[in-house]
Order: sequence, then C-alpha cells, then structure tokens
Amino acid sequence: MTAEAAQSPLAAPFSQIAADINTLFDEVLGVPDDARDRLVEAMRYAAMGGGKRLRPILVCASADLFGVPRSMSLRAGLAVECIHAHSLIHDDLPCMDDDDLRRGKPTVHVAFDEATAVLAGDALLALAFDILGAAETHPDAEVRVELTRELSRAAGAWGMAGGQMLDLRPMAGPVDMDAVARLQRLKTGAIIAWSVDAGAVLGRASSEERTSLRGFAHSLGLAFQIADDMLDCSGNAATVGKRLRKDEEQGKATFVTLLGEDRARRQAQMLIDQAVEHLKPFGARSALLRHIAKFSVDRAY
Amino acid sequence: MTAEAAQSPLAAPFSQIAADINTLFDEVLGVPDDARDRLVEAMRYAAMGGGKRLRPILVCASADLFGVPRSMSLRAGLAVECIHAHSLIHDDLPCMDDDDLRRGKPTVHVAFDEATAVLAGDALLALAFDILGAAETHPDAEVRVELTRELSRAAGAWGMAGGQMLDLRPMAGPVDMDAVARLQRLKTGAIIAWSVDAGAVLGRASSEERTSLRGFAHSLGLAFQIADDMLDCSGNAATVGKRLRKDEEQGKATFVTLLGEDRARRQAQMLIDQAVEHLKPFGARSALLRHIAKFSVDRAY
Repeated sequence: MTAEAAQSPLAAPFSQIAADINTLFDEVLGVPDDARDRLVEAMRYAAMGGGKRLRPILVCASADLFGVPRSMSLRAGLAVECIHAHSLIHDDLPCMDDDDLRRGKPTVHVAFDEATAVLAGDALLALAFDILGAAETHPDAEVRVELTRELSRAAGAWGMAGGQMLDLRPMAGPVDMDAVARLQRLKTGAIIAWSVDAGAVLGRASSEERTSLRGFAHSLGLAFQIADDMLDCSGNAATVGKRLRKDEEQGKATFVTLLGEDRARRQAQMLIDQAVEHLKPFGARSALLRHIAKFSVDRAY
Repeated sequence: MTAEAAQSPLAAPFSQIAADINTLFDEVLGVPDDARDRLVEAMRYAAMGGGKRLRPILVCASADLFGVPRSMSLRAGLAVECIHAHSLIHDDLPCMDDDDLRRGKPTVHVAFDEATAVLAGDALLALAFDILGAAETHPDAEVRVELTRELSRAAGAWGMAGGQMLDLRPMAGPVDMDAVARLQRLKTGAIIAWSVDAGAVLGRASSEERTSLRGFAHSLGLAFQIADDMLDCSGNAATVGKRLRKDEEQGKATFVTLLGEDRARRQAQMLIDQAVEHLKPFGARSALLRHIAKFSVDRAY
C-alpha cells in the first residue's frame, strides 16, 4: 500500500481500492521516451496526485453487491477517475475557475502550462473509453458498450460539461433550491450516478436493483454537494487543499447560501438517511455503501 | 442537400455524405431549452461549420468496399468528425495555436469565449463515444467496442493528443524527414488511419484487406499533410479560410521547409501513387477511395 493510499479518508475497507487505482494508473500511464513525456507526466500528476477516490470506491462497493470480481470493478473505477481528473484539470484553467491549488499542490496548468493542461485533460477523457472497452473490464462486449455510452453521456453536454456550462452562466429566473439541485445533478451528480450504476451493470443487476441504486446515488450526490458547499463556506483551506470561499466571492447561490449552514447540515443528513433507505433491499451486503454515505457528509475535505 | 454540402470540394460522389453528416449533427445536437444552449450552439458552430468532411468520407468509401449500409458508416463518420471538430477547437485556443480564423469564420473561442470553447471541445470528444456505442452503428457490440477503443487511442496521448504535444515542443536532435513524419503520423495520421480502418471493421474485412487499407491510409495521411504544408506555405488565406505561414513564422520544420516545394509536391504525388497501389486488391470497387487520394493533394484548401 502506498503512503497516499494509507491516508485515504475512507480508511481501512477502502484504502486498498485507492492503492489499486494508483497501481493501475501507473500501468496505463507509462511515460514514453520522447517529447510526449511531458503530456503523460501531466496526466500522472493529475490522476495520481491523491484525491478521495470516491468514484472508484463507489463503483467497487456497488459491484461488490453482485459479487463482481474486483479486477473488473477497479477498471471501471479507473475509467471514471480518468473522467474526474480530466474535469478537474479543465475546471482549474484560467479561462474557467482559474484555480492555482488543488489537493494542496499547484494545479496542472501552473505546474506545467496551459497548453499541456488542455491536452492532458483531453487525453484523460479519451483514455477512459479505452480502459472501459478492454475485455478485462467485462467479458461481454454488450456490458462494456453500455458502460461506455452511459459514461460518455454523463461526461458530455447532457451531463457534466452541460453542468459546467450552467455553472459558468448567471442563472436566469429565481435562484431556488430546484435550480441549484439541477445544476448539481448535471455537474457532479451524473458522474456519481454513473459510478454507482456501473457496479450494477457489471453485476447484471435486475431493473429493481438498479432503480434502488439510482435512488441511493441521487440522494448521495446531493448530500455530497451540500457537504462540499459547507466546506467551501467554513472549511480550512489547508485541510481541503484548494482555494475556498469562491462561491461567496462570486456571489453564487449554493445550498448553504440558500438554506444557511444549520439547515444545510440537516438537509444533508436527511439525504443520507434517504440514501441508506434505498439500500434496504441489499441488507447487510450494503455495509460498504452505507459507510461511504456517512463519510460523504462527515468529512473535513 | 444543403448549400454547404453542395460546395463540397470532393464534388458529386461525396456531397451526399457531407449533407448527411450535417443532418446527423443537427439530430444529435438538439439545443436544450436552458443555459446549456450556449454550449450546444458552440458545438454546432464548430461541427456544422463546413469543413471538407474528409474523415467521414474516408469511413464511408472504405465501408462501401464491404457493402456496409451507409446508415452505419455515416455514424462512424459522424463520430470521427466529432473528434476532428474537438481537436480544431482546442488547437485554436489562445494557449495552443491562438488562431482567430477557421474555415473563414471566427474560431469558437472568438465567436463564443474560451471557457465555452474548452467545454465544447470536451463535449464533442465525449459525444463521439456515445455515437459509436449505439446499436444503430453496428448490430454487433464487439464491433462497436473495437471501433470505440481504437478511436480513443487514436485521439489520446498515444495518438492525436500526443502528436499535438510533440508539435508544441521544440524537437530534440536532428529535425529530419523521419521526425516530421513521426509527428504527422500521430497528430493527423492516427485519426485518418482510424477512418479508413473503421470501414474495414464495420465490414468485417479480412486481415489481408485491413493490412492493404492500412498501407493506403498511411501513404494518404502523409500525402495529405504534405499538401497541407504546401498550402500553409503558398496557399491563399481567403481560399483556405485560416491563417497561413504559421510554420514559417514559428520556425517549424515541415515537409516543405525540409524538401522545398517542388520536391514536396513530387513526394506527395509518389505517396498517392503508393496509396493507390495498396487499393489494387479491391479492383474497381475502390474508385471512390482513389478519387479521395487524388483530391487530397490536388486541393486548394
């Protein structure tokens, strides 16, 4: 286990997943012996630079419900972590959020340069689909192609990229909880939902099981975003490892600005209770998913 | 047929393909009724704004060799055109080539803004894999997943993005024909090679047939790049629709700076002869591919 994995905030049951994701990134991101080395180094810097590994952990915990071999769920987790790293690199660019710090380190465009950051984000996005398509991810090509399509939608204009566009533009009309929840559902919710669903797709879950897990993912995604908004508002920048109070500076409506901190905290807790309720059909097998749900609001970063 | 398609430089046999690609883009890029409209409008601006449609035409002409229904090859062509549009948007960004003009129109980051350009490029890259994964592209999921994986590799760090990285960095060691050809093989060659191979994959070509087509694509890609270099050097900016003489300004080695114009032209012609030679096993069926090969060096834009 690497030192980084040992620091995983999700502790014992998940630190192995974080370590395995790092090992897999090390394998798929071999540095070429020519001027492309800078590009791959930037991809490694972004992808292997820590992070909670929440999304791969969700894939694995969901897949565990259906007895999917870890070798398969880890690959789907690796793919979604490529998408996540891609989105952070591009989000941090000067023309987007213009952030210098991420996970306590200079962002990719600061540590390298803007052009390399654009290309590294692009290449990580493309890499996700190469990883998902490999036979090692699942022996059935129908399963691989379903994962691929759903991930491309979760990442694209009708998912994450669309959410980022909404986030960049001033909201029209009344900025209420519905509008903020809608933005979250696209910007971060679609990829979290894919992560939970991927375990079910790999495990050929029944449609009832998938519906339960979708309910879980929906509530979890909202709770996770509220927790993020609370950290942005009252967290410690050194612990969180990135610039905070951005929403406030930019005058953006968030769950916390709309509800206040106390109500936001209660709302997050209520959402976690709802999320856990959706796991009932899975009984004791869902202990890991319940653990993630609790962590998602009780974290300091 | 749209006015734009009617202007296709490849004339009659191909203008229908260009028109069909526009129609398909219009279908897959429906503008949402909210603030994401700006993102999708930028994607449409980039993807439907003309262009030679060389890559979709290559997919269709290659697939025609094997009697693949046009409805299938057009979808693979649509996917590769998403990748092409993605790469042009990001290539034109201020931190990359910093170009204001493309196909005679302001580039995406000028017509919209940089953040929208980054997101539109990202979303087009993601969209390609959604399109390829759909059952309408091919009934066999194994075929779809093979197309997906190969395209993700052709676009990513070990293909186009890697080539763009090479292009951004001063070359180490002697800058000779091999170094320039190697850059081309990654930066533009990988996607051209995918386009020709996609037709063969859709048509379940034999390995001998695929090898022949790979030879064709390799020679064609090089010839196409030499023609591009010649246009950059002596073309008319108004006709070509983008800023020219960039290579010269930046002191970059190209086929033309290394060989001179006359030898470069002869080299391109020789490559086209080689490309056509690879088509021999297909006899008269390959008339369309031969036509594309001829066009690729005889064009004014």
